[in-house]
Amino acid sequence: MVEAIRWEEGVVQILDQLVLPREVVWVPCRRSDEVADCITTMKIRGAPAIGVAAAMGLALAVRQEEAESAASLEDYFAAACDHMSRTRPTAVNLTWAIARMQDRFRQVQAEGLPRVREALTREALDVAREDFETCAAMGRNGADVVPEKARILTHCNTGSLATGGAGTALAVVREAASRGLVEIVYVDETRPYLQGARLTAWELAQDGIPQRLIADNMAAFLMARGQVDFIVVGADRIASNGDVANKIGTYGLAVLARHHRVPFYIAAPLSTVDMAIASGAEIPIEERAARELTHIGDIQLAPEGVDVWNPAFDVTPADFIAGIITEKGILRTPYWKSIADTMGSGGGGRRR
Amino acid sequence: MVEAIRWEEGVVQILDQLVLPREVVWVPCRRSDEVADCITTMKIRGAPAIGVAAAMGLALAVRQEEAESAASLEDYFAAACDHMSRTRPTAVNLTWAIARMQDRFRQVQAEGLPRVREALTREALDVAREDFETCAAMGRNGADVVPEKARILTHCNTGSLATGGAGTALAVVREAASRGLVEIVYVDETRPYLQGARLTAWELAQDGIPQRLIADNMAAFLMARGQVDFIVVGADRIASNGDVANKIGTYGLAVLARHHRVPFYIAAPLSTVDMAIASGAEIPIEERAARELTHIGDIQLAPEGVDVWNPAFDVTPADFIAGIITEKGILRTPYWKSIADTMGSGGGGRRR
Repeated sequence: MVEAIRWEEGVVQILDQLVLPREVVWVPCRRSDEVADCITTMKIRGAPAIGVAAAMGLALAVRQEEAESAASLEDYFAAACDHMSRTRPTAVNLTWAIARMQDRFRQVQAEGLPRVREALTREALDVAREDFETCAAMGRNGADVVPEKARILTHCNTGSLATGGAGTALAVVREAASRGLVEIVYVDETRPYLQGARLTAWELAQDGIPQRLIADNMAAFLMARGQVDFIVVGADRIASNGDVANKIGTYGLAVLARHHRVPFYIAAPLSTVDMAIASGAEIPIEERAARELTHIGDIQLAPEGVDVWNPAFDVTPADFIAGIITEKGILRTPYWKSIADTMGSGGGGRRR
Repeated sequence: MVEAIRWEEGVVQILDQLVLPREVVWVPCRRSDEVADCITTMKIRGAPAIGVAAAMGLALAVRQEEAESAASLEDYFAAACDHMSRTRPTAVNLTWAIARMQDRFRQVQAEGLPRVREALTREALDVAREDFETCAAMGRNGADVVPEKARILTHCNTGSLATGGAGTALAVVREAASRGLVEIVYVDETRPYLQGARLTAWELAQDGIPQRLIADNMAAFLMARGQVDFIVVGADRIASNGDVANKIGTYGLAVLARHHRVPFYIAAPLSTVDMAIASGAEIPIEERAARELTHIGDIQLAPEGVDVWNPAFDVTPADFIAGIITEKGILRTPYWKSIADTMGSGGGGRRR
């Protein structure tokens, strides 16, 4: 399994996802701002992976020479955190990882720089390890509901390139494959950013899991032909009633899955649940640049100046979801109850 | 309204659709084989437009000097027809247009070359004019069922670039727009070949019809938000029971339309009906090259050698279709009956 990010003796190695699948290039970061730059430019993406990168970046910050010469270590570290927080303002895991590193910093800052360095390095590696374990647990829980000889459909990239472990939906696919349950994985290319074609197909190829790439608009016909047994996708944010915001195209798959009686699962860590949100209607829809649709690289695909609607994600009502696969088990309908029960018992989700 | 093809005093001008929307280049063809080459290389595409091009190409054939010097005019013309028929072997309108030109040739060949030239030119212009009128009639019939302030969704390219007139589905859009009924047209980009982004968006921009380009996987969310009032698409082939083969992605739209209670219409000339086919299950599914998905131009989008499923079209069961808009009116369910009634009364469809 390929990794998105590695800690190597004080160097954070980041796999450049912008040049995948054409080239495999590792970017060695020795400074916090180099990691921040990788997040801003999307060399690394995926909410959990961004959280790991931010934590490792802040561990680097206190190892830099400037940390010794700074007039105030506290101010110096606060500036590094502030810079890191401005890389991708909307990523929930980024905020969470930075806050966690700040907490740890406050706990040990009085004990001197060597101790701060050691504690923050350990904390960043803990963030990475915990994410790895969360992915593995989702994989095990999800694989339990994958049928034999499964022909699985997935959307976007939810694998080891997006997390600090095996992924969310792709962790389920990987664990199911390792149990010999997977006949083939159908990979939606996932327009406009093509995370499926560029990243998921590459991850599966690295792992030798049989796959077939399709355009998003082919999924319906594939289901009509009875060639899909199981659908699993990730989540960007889950409301307290179980409505799921995820990559654009997810909702359409959910409607098509219901029509064709294909089980439709979400795989996401409990940290994705936002108890402050009552339903999907409250989730703002980010609309991205027209150029993602009108161009690929420098190639113009549509007429100059054409009006474009480019929502980054959509909302799937809880009613369409067969189950939400988490690290603590599979949540089932009614979701308002299963979510409240799990979160209430220290499930690890966030409250605001 | 832009034209795909023009007859100008013995020169066939073909708009090169390969370089649209970046460039507008007309290819002047003075010889039959130049027209054939434009069809083979897909400078012109769309079944009705190919039919018009083939007819005009054969009118050019008998105007060439070789027609005078040929040992046998009959053999010479047969060779030109044979060459033309090998450009896109599966296009039903191509076969039909060539057969029509051959019939006319046989009727007049005894009357000498000048008469043959005049008769074949007239016949080719008749093919073009009839296609133009068929499109206009579909437009009028379809516009009658478009609601006021309609937000229309369409897929692929079905306009003046694909026909000898205003199009099939786009003829309906154009006529509705001219009646002031259209608030906006949502244009599916139509992966993998991007006929929506490249061609439909360009046609609508030329006509000044308000539009917004979306990725195919955004249509579901658009419907969920109540932003689509009417869907109209074309057809590649219609079975005698009303099942419709059309560009991949059509079936998914039909399922989504039903779920969201959006009327879903097909617009197609009766020549698209194939009475020899009992249902959509008998329609073979053409699968095209992997490269259409894995590359755009020379840009590689997916890992080297990835397995791809790339069906060119899908089949929408008649049951999902609110009406089939033809030049003779709108056919309604039960389609086996409305189709038989219309075709039986000299509707113009083909029997084999």
